[in-house]
Amino acid sequence: MPHRSAKTPLRYELHPQLAADTHPLAAFELCDLRLMDDANYPWLILAPRIAGAHELCDLEAQARHRLSDEIDRVCRLLRDAFQPHKLNVAALGNLVPQLHVHVIARFDHDPAWPAPVWGRVAARPYSPEALVERINLLREGLLS
Amino acid sequence: MPHRSAKTPLRYELHPQLAADTHPLAAFELCDLRLMDDANYPWLILAPRIAGAHELCDLEAQARHRLSDEIDRVCRLLRDAFQPHKLNVAALGNLVPQLHVHVIARFDHDPAWPAPVWGRVAARPYSPEALVERINLLREGLLS
Repeated sequence: MPHRSAKTPLRYELHPQLAADTHPLAAFELCDLRLMDDANYPWLILAPRIAGAHELCDLEAQARHRLSDEIDRVCRLLRDAFQPHKLNVAALGNLVPQLHVHVIARFDHDPAWPAPVWGRVAARPYSPEALVERINLLREGLLS
Repeated sequence: MPHRSAKTPLRYELHPQLAADTHPLAAFELCDLRLMDDANYPWLILAPRIAGAHELCDLEAQARHRLSDEIDRVCRLLRDAFQPHKLNVAALGNLVPQLHVHVIARFDHDPAWPAPVWGRVAARPYSPEALVERINLLREGLLS
């Protein structure tokens, strides 16, 4: 009977928790860009499509630099679309170990400021209308 | 009377809050590497010596890639020295806007797990003996 050898390369699949918490926005060269379903903050997630990656140091230099470029693109997108007070960029993964990078536009009037967003206030899912509007705004920003 | 023109380049200086909260460990090509004075976690800070940088996207591509390389080096240092359950890497800056990157070794028995470390428990400063031991361990790791 065939079995999965330790050397069988895993196929990349977005972690089901990330899939459940986010909406798809764009597919970059390395990462999927997704919108966190939390209207408290403009909050994006970059998920590199690399099977088995948990830490930044699991990436080869070329992929790391590509990830840096894609983070830069998302920082500029959020900065230009929202003029935030500060950007927060983080690869944590204590709950969802699959490598993913949060890029969050922060304002001094947002509900967690100045604390980091994680675990502060309950997520506030977008209404269908607000979701469509937000996704359209961000996709237009990516094209400009 | 001479005055500072808007075009006068600012000289880089480590933000006084970061200087007060950390101990110097090493000077990399781009960043100063410093140890956060909190024995709750192996917690390092990379501070790029670039005047006026607040966001990752304030860096040119070459400096961003160098920063990625130095983050990689610090992740490997912490992984090899402490075998943590997870690494947390973050550029936040809500309180100290000068660009700096946290690299933290996390364990499922640490006092904030699985939450991010910021604002969870009071910092526990190193004793002088523990500080010397920790700095020696990390400097040896950097040399190996």
